Formats: sequence, structure tokens, C-alpha cells
Amino acid sequence: MSIDDAAAISEGSRLGGARSVGLVETQFLTFAEPPERMELECGSKLGPITLAYETYGRLTPERDNAVLILHALSGDAHAAGWHSADDKKPGWWDLYIGPGKAIDTTRYFVVCSNIIGGCKGSTGPSSIDPATGKPYGLSFPMVTVGDMVRAQRRLADRLGIERWLSMTGGSMGGFQVLEWAVRYPDRVASAIPVATSARLGAQAIAFDEVGRQAILTDPNWGGGDYYGGPAPTAGFALARMIAHITYLSDEQMHAKFGRRLQDRDRLAYDFRTEFQVESYLKYQGDAFVRRFDANSYLYLSKATDYFDLSERYGSLVQAFEKVEAEFLVVSISSDWLFPTAESKCIVQAAKANGVPTTFVELQSPYGHDAFFLPNEQLSAAIAGFLENVERRVRKAAAGGGRSP
Amino acid sequence: MSIDDAAAISEGSRLGGARSVGLVETQFLTFAEPPERMELECGSKLGPITLAYETYGRLTPERDNAVLILHALSGDAHAAGWHSADDKKPGWWDLYIGPGKAIDTTRYFVVCSNIIGGCKGSTGPSSIDPATGKPYGLSFPMVTVGDMVRAQRRLADRLGIERWLSMTGGSMGGFQVLEWAVRYPDRVASAIPVATSARLGAQAIAFDEVGRQAILTDPNWGGGDYYGGPAPTAGFALARMIAHITYLSDEQMHAKFGRRLQDRDRLAYDFRTEFQVESYLKYQGDAFVRRFDANSYLYLSKATDYFDLSERYGSLVQAFEKVEAEFLVVSISSDWLFPTAESKCIVQAAKANGVPTTFVELQSPYGHDAFFLPNEQLSAAIAGFLENVERRVRKAAAGGGRSP
Repeated sequence: MSIDDAAAISEGSRLGGARSVGLVETQFLTFAEPPERMELECGSKLGPITLAYETYGRLTPERDNAVLILHALSGDAHAAGWHSADDKKPGWWDLYIGPGKAIDTTRYFVVCSNIIGGCKGSTGPSSIDPATGKPYGLSFPMVTVGDMVRAQRRLADRLGIERWLSMTGGSMGGFQVLEWAVRYPDRVASAIPVATSARLGAQAIAFDEVGRQAILTDPNWGGGDYYGGPAPTAGFALARMIAHITYLSDEQMHAKFGRRLQDRDRLAYDFRTEFQVESYLKYQGDAFVRRFDANSYLYLSKATDYFDLSERYGSLVQAFEKVEAEFLVVSISSDWLFPTAESKCIVQAAKANGVPTTFVELQSPYGHDAFFLPNEQLSAAIAGFLENVERRVRKAAAGGGRSP
Repeated sequence: MSIDDAAAISEGSRLGGARSVGLVETQFLTFAEPPERMELECGSKLGPITLAYETYGRLTPERDNAVLILHALSGDAHAAGWHSADDKKPGWWDLYIGPGKAIDTTRYFVVCSNIIGGCKGSTGPSSIDPATGKPYGLSFPMVTVGDMVRAQRRLADRLGIERWLSMTGGSMGGFQVLEWAVRYPDRVASAIPVATSARLGAQAIAFDEVGRQAILTDPNWGGGDYYGGPAPTAGFALARMIAHITYLSDEQMHAKFGRRLQDRDRLAYDFRTEFQVESYLKYQGDAFVRRFDANSYLYLSKATDYFDLSERYGSLVQAFEKVEAEFLVVSISSDWLFPTAESKCIVQAAKANGVPTTFVELQSPYGHDAFFLPNEQLSAAIAGFLENVERRVRKAAAGGGRSP
């Protein structure tokens, strides 16, 4: 879920390069304007709702080449390209989206939708509540992964995309992929959940809760009503540090930091930062606090905790009963937050329903965050899968049928 | 390192039961009284130093049956028996220490020594600094595992134990076992490090640092000078919650809590405690804060971070060069904080030096904390090993030699 390490920019991906989508702009869709409002799964109503999104490539006249990118907890709509020539790095999945890349923007119309509850342009707790003229704060209703996807469906309607050729996302982005395929089976031709699960487990909920407690007990949090004053940066940075450890593998941390000291030759014997791994984590925490909203973090971490397809449908096999999409399920060998076993549960449930499913375990030492990093195996798997799906969908359309 | 779950009390272990050591009292040894003082590895001097300890069983006239118990970060000298008839539970390792138990107090003279830096009767940051008449707080010098063991050597001297028949401890207790065997080779006939490592890895340091940051950023911490005022309970509870997750396995958390809700049938859609695992963790955090000192936690977690036998001796193989003890190395299959691979490094280094070494991986789903729980495999391994060591030591003594 960290995008801070995803800065690897190949030469052709630079602004103006042959493999870059170039300058892009975030767009906004607003709907559910009062009195309409959208009813959320928690029972509350929310409106108006704005979704931030970006698009790359062109939609075919047949509208059959749209690929939806769904981001993880801390992501945003800016998945590829550059917002300006001054940007230090491109969008968070630029490694995989662009001309000639795994998700080839010369073939596909790529849409990346930000999620509600966040703080990156879509409506969330830091947005102004039109009823009060002030930020929602904790009066913002709880949103679920289902609500996020229902909002994205409105975006699909507006863009005229009746059926996505494919959609992909890692971590909480994978939750959205699964939710789409299960909730709107006729609108998803194929799905690529990456490093994810059909429900969050007890250990992950535990880590989330500790992170939330760090924010909730920060005196600056003030019941969520901190906008305009000092933010709960200490607790929020802690929450991010905890989460960040879970995104990396022990093996990688050992290789990257070991027990090396930071800016010193010998132990200091005090409580200042001594080891490189401490310094790195603090940097990650401090950087994140500057670019994200603590309340959004609370809401989105709750949304991940609530995610459980088995519970909603009785079992995961039953959840997949109406699925029409074919699947490419991707896990990461060193991911201990969403271990391969979780992906295999998805594969089994899909196969039990006759859903065509391919499974790939990426061999990577980089832990959960590996999908943000260059990975040939991931590139090849996505590119090949999309090509096959595209061929089958066009063939079926030519034959008048609807497949896969 | 958690002892909160170790309350399993078999019938015979109740006060008055045939397998209980019965009523016990903590004793205290004070040494290094000024002007003597003990020079610590960090270069500072500390004195006077008090060590809390308990003993069970009787020392033979030959003084050849002493077994030292070394506790983990949050432990204390009270390893077995009962302090009073009102106690709700016995000492933290009562499952393994007592008449007829793995560490049989009818055969062995068992000593459990508390560590310096702690808050359970031995000198630590919450102790009164005689120079000021106030608690040390952050003026307490940094202590290392080496310092803890050097203090325990003074206790051994006072008890007249020239050579321990054996010593055992889990987690940070295992650090002390290794430190003893390496630092005082002629005083350790055998050693049983459990669920431990010869050095703390980057991921464990990272978790420790996040826990420390939670305490250091609690406004009540006040530079460590909180005695007499409100303690940094919020940050300290957080630190414990983080650590507690690492003591359990994902498998066990899933089996124990899954995604079950606490005291409700349906999701609350708010930020109160909802899932059982959240409630359990908060309970653990709150309970720990009541029985432990936040500054001690800071010091002891630093001591674990500093522990690295390889670094001090050039390599782990070199560290074991002078070791005279024979080893029983115990790991836990589901322990991801001190995985089996770490124990195997110890075994390899010992064997490379011709140190007789037995290795046992406990098959347990309970994670790092499994050694606090009933485990037949652990009981049998310790009992068998001690019996063999005792036989060899007595045979060697009868033959005039010194072995193993």
C-alpha cells in the first residue's frame, strides 16, 4: 500500500518519453447531489459525492477496451503519467501503465478511480459538508468497499462503459476488484486481483486497530475535529510506521537495513534513532503524514476491516456464483500481510463455480509492496492475460454472443 | 514475552498441591554500593544495584544442581509457586518448574533472577537514585544483556554457585542464556535457549522502535519524568499491543478470534471496539500498563535491539569458540518473531565449534508465546536433557574431570 518506493522511472517513462502517457489531469465527477444522495451500506446517506479519476488512452467506438485501475489504501487517481514538468515522479503505477507497457494505453482505455472516504479529491471526512460549511470530520458516514464500488459504478455509467474489459488493483484495490466482479457480474469481463484476499484476517485487523488507536489517542486528534489546527501527526505517523512494517518482508528488511547504524559508527546508548531501519520507518511515517489525512486513514482502515465476501454471501464459493468475469489471481511469495494462501482461497472459490482462473505467485523478496516495484513476471502475466481476454471478448462480440 | 495467558493451572500445581513449590518469597541481593559501583557496557557506572530473585528446591552440598531461569522482557523473579493464598495464579513458568515437572525442584536448585533495567524489584529507571532521592527516569544508564548477565554473575557468586548445571529462558531470556554461555564459559555446564536468536533482526528492531515512539510521543511521558504524575499509559498500551501481535501467530489469532464481533451481532460502523481481536488487544495493553513501567520498557527494548553476539565476536561461530556448555536449542514452528531459522543459526555456530547440541522445533500453532503454555514436547525435551546433563556432570566429577 506504500507508493513512496515506487519511484523507479525508466528512461522511456520520463515526460515526453515513448513509454509515458505524458501530461495528464485529474478529472472530477460529482453526483448524488441533494436531495438525491446515495444510501450507504451503513444506512446513512451521503451527497453530493465527488469522485476524482484519471483516464489514459482512448475508448474504442465499441467501448470494449476499458480497463479500471483500483488503488490501495493510500493511493489516488493519479496512476500514470505526469501532472507537470516539475513532478519528481510519475503516477503510482506508471511502471505498468503506458504505451507498450503491461496495460498498454495504445490498446486500452485506462481509468483510475479514487475512492470515497479518501482525501485525494474524492469526498471524504476532510471534505466540506455542505450542510454545515465545515469539514465532515467524524460526522462523515462509515463507507465500505461496497460503497466505493457503487460510487465507481456511477463513474462507469457516466463514461459510457457498460462492461469493463478488465480491472486490476492490489491490496485494498484487490478488494474493490473482487467486489466489482461479485456485485456487478455483467459489467466485468475480467478481473486481476493482486496481493489481496476475500476478507481481512484477525492479525491484519489487529494491526489496523493499533494504528487507529495511535491516531485516536493523539491529543491533537480531538474527536476528528482537528482541521484548521494542529493535526494528530505523532499518532498518525506511528500508525503508518506500524503498517509499513507489514508491507515489507523480514527478508527484505534484513537485506536492506540489517542492523546497520544510521549516521554513526557505534551505539549511542540513548533513545535517539540509531539503526537505519528506525530512521527509514520514521521517514516513511513523517512523509505520509504530510500527504494524507488522518481521518481518511481511520475510515479506510475500517473499510478494509469490514471487507468479507464470505460473510456477506454465506461462503466464498457462494459469493462467486454469479461471477461472469474470468480471473487472473496474483500473489507475492514474500507477502505475509496477504499471504499466497489467501489468494488460493479466491482461486478455489472461482474454480468451484467454473470461473476460468489463472493463478500466478510472483517470486519476489519485497513483501506486500512488491506490486509497486518493477516485476517482469507481473508485467508479462497482466499483458498476456489482457491480450487473451481482449481476443475472446471481440470474438464473442463478432459472433453475437457475450463471452468470456 | 506475555505472561498474561500463562494462567493454566493444573490441579496438582495449586497451592498445597503435590506438584507445586508452594509458598515462595522474592529475595533481594544488593551489591556495587558506592563507591564501588558497576561499570556498564555503555561506559556509565551504576550502584548500588539490587537484584530480585527467587529460589526453589535445595542446593546439594556439592553445589552441582543449580538451574538458572532467565525471564523475558516483561517477566520477573517469580517463576514458580505462590506468593500468597490469595494469588490468582502462580509464577510465570509454574507449568515447567516444580516437584516432578520438567525442571524438577526435588532434584534441582532453581534460581530465577530478575534483570536490571526492569521494574520488578531490581534496579531500574523507576528506582530511587540515591544521589538525588528521586527516581532515575532517563538519567538511568542504558543497560545491555551483557550487563544483566554480569549482575547475575554477582548473584551466582553470592549463592556459591560456581557452575550452573543448566540455565534456560525464552525470548530475551534466551539472549541471557546465550550471553552467559559465551561470556562465562566455565560457569555454564549446559544451556537451553528457547524461542530466541543470537541477534535481533531488522523487522524486530522496527517493531520495537514503533513501540518506543508510541511511548516517547505520549504527552504524559515528559522526557521520562512522569513518576508521581499521570503515566504515559496511552502510548505504553499501544506499544504493548504492537508487541503482543508479534507474540501470536496469524493462525492462532484466526482460530481464536477470526472476524467475530465483540458483544454485538452486527457491525457498528463506528470507531469503537467491534472485533474480538481488537477487544483482546486493548485488554492486553491496558493490563500490561498497570503492571509495568514505561521507562523500563524503553530500556529493555533497547537492550534487546543492541543484542548481537556476531557483531561483538566477529561472527557467531567465533562467539561460540570458548563455550563449554552443551546445548538444547528450542524453537517454535509458528514463531515468526524468532523463527526457527534463527535457532538453526545458533545450532550451526555451536556445532561448528564441536559443542554438543540438540535441536528441537516445537510443533505448536501458538506463535512466540507458546513456551508460556503447556507443551508436552517442551516438557519432555527439557526433562530429558537435564537428566542427561546431570548424569554426565556427576560422572565427570566422580572421575575427577570436568564435563561435559
